[in-house]
Amino acid sequence: MARRTSDNSTIRVALLGCGNVGLALYELLAEPQNKQALFQRTGLTFEVVGIAVSSLKRKRSDADWFDASLLTTNAAALVVREDVDVVVEVMGGIDETLPLFEKALKSGSSVVSANKALLARHGRALARLAFNHGADLRYEAAVAGAVPILRVLRDALSGEQVTRVMGIVNGTTNFILSLMDHEGVAYGDALAEAQRLGYAEKDPTADVEGYDAASKAAILASLAFDCKVSAAEVSREGITQVSAEDVAFARQLGYAVKLLAIAEVLEGTELSVRVQPTMVPAAHPLASVDGAFNAVFVEGEACGELMLYGRGAGGKPTASAVLGDLVEVARSMHRGGAPDVPLSPRTMVKRPIAQISSAFYLTLDVADQPGVLAKVTEVFGQHGVSIRSMEQVGLGDEARLVFVTHRALEGAMSATIKQLRRLKVVDRVGTLLRVIENGEGNS
Amino acid sequence: MARRTSDNSTIRVALLGCGNVGLALYELLAEPQNKQALFQRTGLTFEVVGIAVSSLKRKRSDADWFDASLLTTNAAALVVREDVDVVVEVMGGIDETLPLFEKALKSGSSVVSANKALLARHGRALARLAFNHGADLRYEAAVAGAVPILRVLRDALSGEQVTRVMGIVNGTTNFILSLMDHEGVAYGDALAEAQRLGYAEKDPTADVEGYDAASKAAILASLAFDCKVSAAEVSREGITQVSAEDVAFARQLGYAVKLLAIAEVLEGTELSVRVQPTMVPAAHPLASVDGAFNAVFVEGEACGELMLYGRGAGGKPTASAVLGDLVEVARSMHRGGAPDVPLSPRTMVKRPIAQISSAFYLTLDVADQPGVLAKVTEVFGQHGVSIRSMEQVGLGDEARLVFVTHRALEGAMSATIKQLRRLKVVDRVGTLLRVIENGEGNS
Repeated sequence: MARRTSDNSTIRVALLGCGNVGLALYELLAEPQNKQALFQRTGLTFEVVGIAVSSLKRKRSDADWFDASLLTTNAAALVVREDVDVVVEVMGGIDETLPLFEKALKSGSSVVSANKALLARHGRALARLAFNHGADLRYEAAVAGAVPILRVLRDALSGEQVTRVMGIVNGTTNFILSLMDHEGVAYGDALAEAQRLGYAEKDPTADVEGYDAASKAAILASLAFDCKVSAAEVSREGITQVSAEDVAFARQLGYAVKLLAIAEVLEGTELSVRVQPTMVPAAHPLASVDGAFNAVFVEGEACGELMLYGRGAGGKPTASAVLGDLVEVARSMHRGGAPDVPLSPRTMVKRPIAQISSAFYLTLDVADQPGVLAKVTEVFGQHGVSIRSMEQVGLGDEARLVFVTHRALEGAMSATIKQLRRLKVVDRVGTLLRVIENGEGNS
Repeated sequence: MARRTSDNSTIRVALLGCGNVGLALYELLAEPQNKQALFQRTGLTFEVVGIAVSSLKRKRSDADWFDASLLTTNAAALVVREDVDVVVEVMGGIDETLPLFEKALKSGSSVVSANKALLARHGRALARLAFNHGADLRYEAAVAGAVPILRVLRDALSGEQVTRVMGIVNGTTNFILSLMDHEGVAYGDALAEAQRLGYAEKDPTADVEGYDAASKAAILASLAFDCKVSAAEVSREGITQVSAEDVAFARQLGYAVKLLAIAEVLEGTELSVRVQPTMVPAAHPLASVDGAFNAVFVEGEACGELMLYGRGAGGKPTASAVLGDLVEVARSMHRGGAPDVPLSPRTMVKRPIAQISSAFYLTLDVADQPGVLAKVTEVFGQHGVSIRSMEQVGLGDEARLVFVTHRALEGAMSATIKQLRRLKVVDRVGTLLRVIENGEGNS
């Protein structure tokens, strides 16, 4: 197929979206000092030739380099313009945005995007479409902001047999959990603070229920294992059930609570992709990833353990990742030559979550009366869930029992919880957390 | 210039060296299961067509996939063979190895190397030679083993204005310092343990005196700032002066002692590249990089703070990095097209170490008598070095004074130390460490 090449060093960019990220990127490309530094580093000049926005009324910037005449509300016309080499999409949305990607790629323009939700759903089909039209599709900024994890999986680790990827890929939930840990505040207060600081949206569902992390887990899994995984196939739990007491108790046991996106290969061709609040041992590199930072921990047969850490969100860090993709696309246009042929995805079987094993943390509020512990532990035993430690914390008329189990199947643990709920002496089944055992994945 | 392309998917590899790394790489390429997995992931097959070794007598492997008939002692003949696409150099050495690189590149073969000392000295000239002959030169494994920091600087951050790179890039010294920290053992005992475990050589000079880290600092600086820096231009101090007491005291003050390779831009076109034992605040991501692990922390205008962490040495992790380069070289052969034109290096002025500012930690053993502190602090004052904190630790007839200063110039601190040595009441000037202040580079 024809591959569009450029024989001069100016790359013409159509920008879709001019929010935080779009404006930061425009500044990196157009502000004179930045523009000069970029040319010095890369030999390239990027010219923004159009900016699609939803409204022309909103004031975007007073800066000299900001050219308001580039703004347009007609994104569909912009992406097929002949003087566009690359379309950069930082406007979000799925159904209304997908046709813009398709139009751009079909007209031979490469696309750079930060849209995790769209890529998690349509990434493979779009990559194929890009290949068929000699275009590139890059989306480093879609996972973990400025952290170049997608490139590392695609390039540096292309020959590596990756066995597991575990990421803190949602800054909002990590900020909330870090605040609960450091300040001992309740989930609701930490969420309110995150909202006040602009780290969480007014409707925080996508973040706190793990939907955002699930999209990123799907993208990570498909790149790490070269297979098809969509966000809908990711087992997902959020952090709304995690209490300040859980976080404090975890700390006391030597763990930090993190919302992890996990993708792992089990016995060759079986795969598990899930998002779960997890207790990470304090000595594990992921445990000290604090606040709004992101990190992705990768395990491979030859490379051993790798971790990439950095800013997962924000206008400038996200724009930095988009810029890296833009430079890559531009270099590829300069080189010419044939594009890398995408391989057929490997066929991997998703192992049901019930068949995934882990150690667990579980709290139970029970009546403070003799014989309760025996009744409760009997239920664990009936399902083959072996208890590693138990602590009792007084709560007036009640007692709270805090269990940590040995490794057991999720299915066995679910069955245990179901039966525990039926026990009269159990007033409330509290939080369930997965526990990464010391040394696991960090040997 | 002509660029060698390959129209089939088999890449023929000449291997120079068959020690830990060479053998691990050969196994990744030739062992049947690995070979199949690699083909599945990349669509590529690598065929080792010759292995240069210093002696044919040494037994290397009993494995089925090991083909002893490939061994040769004639490296010079191997690198110019017409059936070689890529030369992989993992034998080390500089003067005897450089001509092999030159021969290989001149004959159009690409070169992949793990040789930090050679690359730190001749990297730029070799890159130019490679370009002139349409070949690639890659050396990810030369810095921080499996950690893909060179690619990230070269590709992901190509458009980024990187301001500072700080790395723990020598596993031997990090192992020693970690052991001193965790077990409270003396430097000599920690070194002996590192030697016993094979982490340190019998002659540990290259590691403990910072020569190895200086080579890596030079490579990092030239990639991060696109300028010429050789290992000889790197200011270098090792860890032999660091005592168990220093490490314990640092810990008490909230720091970990690390040997850092630092490359930073100062005011636009000035540059500093140095290797120094440094106190890193406990909350800084570099502080928890333990044992033989490596990590590189990058700060950039747009990306903010990034860190890459992983195994910095060992046969398999190093071979993993070499394999990543091999796949990249192979993909580039497949694509064909023009190679990336290397830009002329930026002209940057190295600022003399005396003009670099830092906070400092310094210990002094002094006579335990009245008036000593006044005499000592007067010397600091004369050179404009302001003291942030001082603690006195009794030592029998002597006292040890532990100072932490505010930010001062290295030159002023050297002059202070020179004059302190002349004071009669000062029995010994102890360790000098740089101190990264809380929040610095981690805001």
